[in-house]
Amino acid sequence: MNHPREVRRAIRAGRHRGHTAGLAPGHVQGNVCILPREYAEEFRLFCERNPKPCPLLALSKPGDPRLPELGEDLDIRTDVPRYRVFRDGVQSEEVTDLRDLWRSDLVTFVLGCSFSFEEALMKAGLPLRYVEEGTNVPMYRTNVDTAPAGRFRGKLVVSMRPFKPAAAIRAIEITSRYPRVHGAPVHIGRPDLIGIEDLARPWAGDPTEVREDELPLFWACGITPQSVVLEAKPTLCITHAPGHMLVTDLENASLGER
Amino acid sequence: MNHPREVRRAIRAGRHRGHTAGLAPGHVQGNVCILPREYAEEFRLFCERNPKPCPLLALSKPGDPRLPELGEDLDIRTDVPRYRVFRDGVQSEEVTDLRDLWRSDLVTFVLGCSFSFEEALMKAGLPLRYVEEGTNVPMYRTNVDTAPAGRFRGKLVVSMRPFKPAAAIRAIEITSRYPRVHGAPVHIGRPDLIGIEDLARPWAGDPTEVREDELPLFWACGITPQSVVLEAKPTLCITHAPGHMLVTDLENASLGER
Repeated sequence: MNHPREVRRAIRAGRHRGHTAGLAPGHVQGNVCILPREYAEEFRLFCERNPKPCPLLALSKPGDPRLPELGEDLDIRTDVPRYRVFRDGVQSEEVTDLRDLWRSDLVTFVLGCSFSFEEALMKAGLPLRYVEEGTNVPMYRTNVDTAPAGRFRGKLVVSMRPFKPAAAIRAIEITSRYPRVHGAPVHIGRPDLIGIEDLARPWAGDPTEVREDELPLFWACGITPQSVVLEAKPTLCITHAPGHMLVTDLENASLGER
Repeated sequence: MNHPREVRRAIRAGRHRGHTAGLAPGHVQGNVCILPREYAEEFRLFCERNPKPCPLLALSKPGDPRLPELGEDLDIRTDVPRYRVFRDGVQSEEVTDLRDLWRSDLVTFVLGCSFSFEEALMKAGLPLRYVEEGTNVPMYRTNVDTAPAGRFRGKLVVSMRPFKPAAAIRAIEITSRYPRVHGAPVHIGRPDLIGIEDLARPWAGDPTEVREDELPLFWACGITPQSVVLEAKPTLCITHAPGHMLVTDLENASLGER
């Protein structure tokens, strides 16, 4: 499935229920966060104040399941392969369709995801070890505070990818051109300086080896808003299940600044 | 002296013989290398193959002391405060005027210098320790080969500036926008991986402390071509004396890519 519309149609029809990595290559995939209207303004402000972990790509009108700027046919109630539903900050169910849960006050936030800059890194010949090894990228909770907005506050979560020094510099140059999908890393080397005690024990994802001649590079991670939202314990919050992203019509190349 | 033309006039008249750091703020200063025509094509190719240490800003016609693209009034025979003259690879004299030495076969190369990107770093609030301490930037010969061209070959020389991790990432982002003045660093952290044994013992310049929570960043250095040219032992080579640069009309901002 190479075209995003085709991918969304297969998901909508229940023909695709799995991960979205590698689908519709070249197109932007998004983190999804759906909240009742009463939280929307505060969360929008949180995204605005924390553009690295929360690069806002699109925001719906209350109750409107469409996001025409991401795809004319797109329906957020049916076009994500798997959703997680949280009530008062606790996960209550996983579902593959939101039509029964949909309400007229729900607002959808779509945030950029690292798949876009990873494509640019791989095109530049920079290898991603976790991709080569078929595992998930390791994620860590840091001691770095996000900028609070109303009820939303908490620590920054980062993903880590190791590179040799010259490749690390290239990776910084490349990802700095993609501010709408996390942008440049937030930290390099020395995990202890941001409160990460042991690289071998990630908070989420799988451990990735950092070899003797490599430096760990840390990017703000799209899990941060989920983590922050869940601490705020909204009455309802719906997200995509990890790896089951929203496939959009936007092209990764369109997010690059040069 | 704020205007480049005013600076060059003072130098030409012998009223300024010192360093050029801080003169004509906002304007590009250049490394100078003058060679007989028989070496010019090979050295031009060397610059083309090594744009990070040798970012070529301007190249004169043989025998022509003018470089109108860098300043309408500019005369390379009189507008540098102090020159070094090398014969067969050995320094023979330092002079303040080239009119007696000028020949109809001499070709002038002007290369970008780190002053330009340092201005951008300081404007972004990133401190440069060696500037604050009033010393010279430390420079190191690495074990990294430049790409050879004819008789010109040799090891890359780098300058080092220490930063905390997040500032190091900002410094990489900023300098990557200035490819015509060395661009992004070539290495970060781990000096041993590029053959630098002891940061406290630079090959040129003064040692700079790297604190416990900092990483050393290494940029390709404008000394590289001088070092390479001198190993090639041309019959004649004239350079600026360290810190005594050519002040041009180009604006630093014009070299930035965004």
